[in-house]
Parts: sequence; C-alpha cells; structure tokens
Amino acid sequence: MTDPLDLDAFRENGYQLIDWIADYLGGLEDRPVLEPVSPGDVRAKMPAAAPRTGEPFSALMRDLDEIVAPGMTHWQHPNWFAYFPASSSPASILAELAAAGIGAQGMLWSTGPAITEVESHVLDWLVDLTGAPQNWKTTSTGGGVIQISASDSTHTALVVAREECRKRSGASAEQMVAYTSSQAHSSVEKGAIVAGFGHIRLIDVDEEFAQRPDALQAAIEADIAAGLTPAFVCAAVGTTGTTAIDPVRAIGEIGRAHDMWVHVDAAYAGSAMMCPEFRRLQDGLELVDSYTFNPHKWLFTSWGCSVFWVADRKPLIDTLSIAPPYLRNAATDSGDVIDYRDWHVPLGHHFRALKLWWVLRSFGVEGIQSMLRAHISWANDFATWVEDQPELEIFAPNPLALVCFRHRGGSEATQALATAINADGSVYVTPSLIGDDAFIRVSIGSTSTEQRHVLAFQEKIKALL
Amino acid sequence: MTDPLDLDAFRENGYQLIDWIADYLGGLEDRPVLEPVSPGDVRAKMPAAAPRTGEPFSALMRDLDEIVAPGMTHWQHPNWFAYFPASSSPASILAELAAAGIGAQGMLWSTGPAITEVESHVLDWLVDLTGAPQNWKTTSTGGGVIQISASDSTHTALVVAREECRKRSGASAEQMVAYTSSQAHSSVEKGAIVAGFGHIRLIDVDEEFAQRPDALQAAIEADIAAGLTPAFVCAAVGTTGTTAIDPVRAIGEIGRAHDMWVHVDAAYAGSAMMCPEFRRLQDGLELVDSYTFNPHKWLFTSWGCSVFWVADRKPLIDTLSIAPPYLRNAATDSGDVIDYRDWHVPLGHHFRALKLWWVLRSFGVEGIQSMLRAHISWANDFATWVEDQPELEIFAPNPLALVCFRHRGGSEATQALATAINADGSVYVTPSLIGDDAFIRVSIGSTSTEQRHVLAFQEKIKALL
Repeated sequence: MTDPLDLDAFRENGYQLIDWIADYLGGLEDRPVLEPVSPGDVRAKMPAAAPRTGEPFSALMRDLDEIVAPGMTHWQHPNWFAYFPASSSPASILAELAAAGIGAQGMLWSTGPAITEVESHVLDWLVDLTGAPQNWKTTSTGGGVIQISASDSTHTALVVAREECRKRSGASAEQMVAYTSSQAHSSVEKGAIVAGFGHIRLIDVDEEFAQRPDALQAAIEADIAAGLTPAFVCAAVGTTGTTAIDPVRAIGEIGRAHDMWVHVDAAYAGSAMMCPEFRRLQDGLELVDSYTFNPHKWLFTSWGCSVFWVADRKPLIDTLSIAPPYLRNAATDSGDVIDYRDWHVPLGHHFRALKLWWVLRSFGVEGIQSMLRAHISWANDFATWVEDQPELEIFAPNPLALVCFRHRGGSEATQALATAINADGSVYVTPSLIGDDAFIRVSIGSTSTEQRHVLAFQEKIKALL
Repeated sequence: MTDPLDLDAFRENGYQLIDWIADYLGGLEDRPVLEPVSPGDVRAKMPAAAPRTGEPFSALMRDLDEIVAPGMTHWQHPNWFAYFPASSSPASILAELAAAGIGAQGMLWSTGPAITEVESHVLDWLVDLTGAPQNWKTTSTGGGVIQISASDSTHTALVVAREECRKRSGASAEQMVAYTSSQAHSSVEKGAIVAGFGHIRLIDVDEEFAQRPDALQAAIEADIAAGLTPAFVCAAVGTTGTTAIDPVRAIGEIGRAHDMWVHVDAAYAGSAMMCPEFRRLQDGLELVDSYTFNPHKWLFTSWGCSVFWVADRKPLIDTLSIAPPYLRNAATDSGDVIDYRDWHVPLGHHFRALKLWWVLRSFGVEGIQSMLRAHISWANDFATWVEDQPELEIFAPNPLALVCFRHRGGSEATQALATAINADGSVYVTPSLIGDDAFIRVSIGSTSTEQRHVLAFQEKIKALL
C-alpha cells in the first residue's frame, strides 16, 4: 500500500515527473500540434468511477502518456502559430512547482507577506521595464495585481467604472454605456455583460482595424443625447484579430472629457513594451485609469498571469473591499499593507508573482528583449515572404509578431488554405474573419519556436499553393 | 552564461527544487506558523530593479530560503488551525507541476481535449462520490466546472441569477434582491455588489447561527410588497464563522416558490460529503440550481480548485457565451463538446482538473474518507476537552472539524487568550466575532496535522489559562 503523504516517495516521483516534462518538451517536435482526437475519446479511456483505494504514482504517470498527452493540443509546440502564444519557460514551470509546494494563499498581507510583497515589488519593476507611468507603482497612488486572465482584469475595470459612474452621476447600470472597438477582444463585451452594463457600443475601425476616435466621439454624443451615461471606454493596444493599435491618447482624451473610466487592453502587446522601441504604440498612458497585459501570453510565464495596473488604487479598493470579522488583523488595521483580496473578485490570492519574478531573473531583461525582438524579426521576414508570393497578400499591418494574410483567390480560397495548413496537425494556425473577409493569423512567439520552424512553415505553405 | 531554455539544466534544477519542497514540508514543524515579519521586510531584501542579464537558478533557490520562506505564513504547517485549511498533498503538488510543464489552456475543447474531458469526467465522479443529484452530471442536464475560488463560483451564480430574473421579470439589477444569512461568507455580499444587485439582505440566524427560513420568507414578502424583485438566495452548508448549517430544503422550497435562483455555498463542508454520514447536512439538493465547494480547502488539492455545479447548464452558457470568429471551430459548431470558456468569466481555462484527478487516485476514496473522519474525530475530542475546562466553553456546534470556543471570562478574556495562543507563532488560530461576542476558531484539517499536534495544542492552551 502506497502512502500518499510519504515525502521520500514524493522525491522519487518528483524526479520522474521532472524527467517526463523535459522529455515531453524536448520531444514536442516529433508530435503533431493537434493530436488526432474526437469528442469522447479521452473520457472513454477513464474508468466509470474513482478508485476505492489509492493507486501508485506509476499509474498516474502511465496515464500522462496514454490519456493526457495523446488527448492534448500542444500549446508549447515549436510549430504553434495559432491564437496568441501561451509562452512558458523552465523557470516559470519550476516556480509553479515551488508555489504549489509552499501551498500558501495571500488573501491578506498577513496570510503570506512574501506573496504580497514580491508581487507588489515585481509589478513595480515592470512599471519601469515597460515605461509605464510612475504613479502606477504601489509606492505611489496606483499599483498592480496579478489576475488570472485579461478577462478578469477587464471585468474588474468595468465593475469599478460602473461604481464610479454610479457615485458621480447617479445613473443605473442599465443606463450606462461601455465603448470598445468592433475589433476588441470578446472579453470586453463579455465583461460588460457580466458587470450588467445596459449598453455596449462596438466602435467602427479605420482601414488598419484601429478604433476611430471620431466614431467614438460621435457615439458618445449620440448616447448622451439619448439620455444614457457613458461610463467606460477600452482602447486595445493590439487587437486579437490583427494586433491593430487603437490610438490611446485620442481615446484617453475623449474618455477624460466625459469623466469615463479609460482602460487599455494590451493583453498580448504589453510584453513587447519591454523593448523601448515599441512604446510609441501606446503613447498617452498618462490618460489611462487601468491597464492589463498578460505575461502568460508572451513573457515566458505560465498561464494564469495577467497584470492589472491602476493609476489610483482607491476606487478599486473602495469597490471591492469587504471586511468580515474573521479577516480582521493588526496589519490590515494599520493601513501599512496591501491586502490583495481587495484588488479582485476572488478572496484567495495565489503566489503567481513567483513565476514572474523567476522568469525576469532567469532570462534577465536583455534575454527577454532578445527573444521578443527575434520573434518580431521572424514575423517581419515572414510578412515579406508572403508579399513575395503571387498567390498571397498581407491582410493587416503586423506591428509585432502576428502576421495576417490571405489568399488572393478570396475568402473561400483562404479558408481552404487554412484547412490544408492545419490538416496533418504538424502546424497550427487560426483562421479568422472580419466581416466576410477570411484571413489566416500566424502568431510567432512560442518559447520553443526557432527561425527554422518559421522557414519550414513557409515551405509548407508554398507546397500548398 | 546560463541558457534559460536548457532542458538538461531544467532537470537538475527540478530535482533540486523537488528536494527543497520535501525538506520544506518535512521541516515545517521546526518553523513557526507565522514568521516574525513586519510590513516592508520582504521588499527590503529585493533589489530596486530587475537584473539586466540572467541569474543562475542557484540565486533563485537561495532566495527561497532567504526571502520567501522567512517571509511566509506557512499554510501547510501541522499547527495550522486558522481560517480553514488549504490542504495540499504530494499528488496535488506534482499535478500542478505536470500541468505547468504541459502548459496548455483549455478555453475550448479543441484547444485541450484532455483538459476538458478529464475535468468533466472527474466532476461527474464527484457527483457520485458526494451523493449529489445525478442530473448535475455533464452527461445529464447539468455539469461541473472548476473555478478558481468559491468567490468566483458564487459570483458566477449571481450573474446567471440576475440574467434569468431579468428575462423572467423585466426587473433591473437595481430592483433585484439577493438573500443570504448574516453568517454567510463575505463572498456572497461581495459577489452581489460586483454583479450589481441593488439590494442584499443578510437574514437573521437561529441560536445555532443557521439561516432562519421564517426570517427569509418575511424578508422576501416585505421586498415584494416594496416593489422589489427577489432573484437569488444562498444557503450556506457550513458558514465561515462557525460552520453553521443552513436548512437547504426549507430555503430551497422558499426560493422555488418565488422563482429565485437557489445557490449553495459549501466551500468548506462540501469535502465532507465524501463520507455518506454527513450528507444529511445538505438534504434538499434537488431544489438547488447551483452549488460550490472547494477541494482546495479540505480535499488535499492545491489552491485554485473550486467546484461549481449547476443542475441545468443552459442558463449558465446562455449568459456567458460569446463567440467571436477567432474562437470558431468545428468541434464547437458540432455541439458535441463542452467549451469551458462559456462556464466562467475568464476566457482561458487551466488544467486544474489534473490535480483533483491525481488526488482522488493517489488517496483513493477510502483514503480520503479516513483522513476526513480522523480530522472530525480529533475535532470532537478537542471540543470535549474544551467542555472539560472550567475556564472555557463551546461557542457554537461543531458538525465537522471546526471548533469554536470562548473564555468564560467574556470577550476581552477570549481575545486575550487568542492573542496569547498566537503570540509565539508556534500555532495559529483565528479570533472572530459574532456581534460583540468574541470566540476562537480552531480548524483541524491541515494535511500534515496528526492527533499529537492537536493534543499538544490543548496543552498549550491549558498552560495559558
């Protein structure tokens, strides 16, 4: 009988699993990105009931090989060009292990001082590293917190915006309007629905798919004339469809002029701000109330790491703070500490900062910059290659490492090409649509992707034309 | 220069970290539960800026010892009697490592078939294991999803309740009322605020701190008479203060009679339902729309694992589904699969089911039952010991493994005793209040707690009386 609490067995099992992960990551190139799996295949391999008595660790490891890996879509694959990357790294994987091993929970400063302070400190580092306004630091009026996803960050911003608007104007949520571009991520619309906004306006975009400030201004004026109350506007720095760049300064000025909460969704593009040459893409941040970006997309940090900054933490804490007796403690009462329970919807707060800290230290700032610049340079080369193909054309600008292209034969030919590219599972791209126009998104940024993978991908496309 | 992507180094670093965790867990007893740390101590040890070039893994490991561990509150300590436990286990820690190593994200079935199917399957197992209604299975009308925390689960239930009420009654969120007991967890009130409910009623409790159905009924009638719309009621199976048990059947009948959404928060107590003898505590589940419990509290599963079940998944998905073009895919269009993005606020979905699967298999059902029964039996013994002390008295019933007691000298003496218990950091309890009545919560359930720790704790209290 195995003792599930035996720490010597934990050591042996742990070494085995570390080896399994190294073999898995090192061997991804020999697997398809998309395993050939149909709905129900995975469940069919699992027993109908949980076991009555404990199973040995070898059975769990066996099922990693027999059930999990062959039922997976391999996000860490070097031929991952789909969606945006979920770029992990060895330091991040080990930080997840360390956080799980420590098994602590920092809802309050007092329930995990190091969880709270490492997070505040590392997010203050990131203010400097991304050129964000100095008042976003926890040592100033603002501060950062790690949420699980950009959806959570944006939903939180919407809730605070709603409460601020209610206090200021007396309007009900049903009378409030949230604005974002027609190309914004679905999380903005979903967050507004979840937060109970009565109206969501998807603002027209220009020929480069960026939000049009004149259209935003006109929509706001029309809503005010109709008796509604503009409450929230989101500028996307890097839309999900094409990484279009909304003009933050112009949108921020309009938002400020109407006392609205101004939020920036830079979920993907925010990581690029580690390189100073891209910061022009988000000029105007001093006009912004909140900002989110996801290190779990393109900063080599495992999933579940969305940075959420506010310029002023008071409205956030005013909205989200509830203090029942069992959470009272001397440190909180002193006012000298951050209690992250008041910065998001969940009460509990995980040690997610550990992975961000370890990634920054393991790569160093220059190491990260050189990875990001390589991805962007390979994307530029790929875009140039697309332009050279008589059958293909670029669909949208590629300011960073997402290239959007299409077949000159039209949407049907484009969709057929996407299907053909994904057919054997060896690479994975995301087909998409704007209106009726089909295009193919090629996102370069998986941690394990090398230039040779992009070049081989080009050859694969070439062969399908 | 260290290569942060080198997989051979990852192996070596991983073995080291596994050893560090085994040593950490095995050595907790020699540490205080609460490290002596003051606000700012942790940050003072960190450099003002992130490093320009990569640091070796040895530097990260060094700072686990020099910055993290001495700045931590040790939730896995055997003398952890505070709050509720956050009970981890070796299998859960390793599952977190495996999930991080695989680094995939199951927002859609197609982006991680095994993530989705393992989760659905294991939560269907749990329906049987906890005696929940059969229609809560994904193979029936309902289904389960793992959210991060009970706060997220309850907030999600509130949002769906709001949308269902709006469709049915045409009421605005400002006109809607959410009901829960005055002893419910703060997440119900916070969730209602976040979801924009206009009114939240904290219903009176009986002498055992359980919600009074007559008081609930009266509050609903008064609100209807005032032109408001009752939309949501939460029954707590195990309140946070004292693990009081609200009468689910009576509350469910009242909720049904008024077309309200009926939610059960069993965040802590739900794990006990693995033992059939405790299921009487939640009689009436067939009247419930949604239910949440946290395996990360008392089912030996690391933090970030809150089970959320619905009896009917349609209103949940109707409320939360948004389908932009870049998320379209053949599996989703077929309707044959679950896409967990539609079951919660975040778009992304982590492989949290892996740890629950591994824990159930590693302990086996009987192994978990015997751990839970041991905790409950030690709590009963501890309560009996309290009753035998002339200076102490039991403050509230202990149906599970939380014992609430106080000093017969009154609230001041009770608070002084709590302070004295926590003073040297060797054990950790939570002082609390109901009204002006102070009491001490002693929660037994840390994975590493043995009977000898409870007995030594008794001796410690004895010496302080």
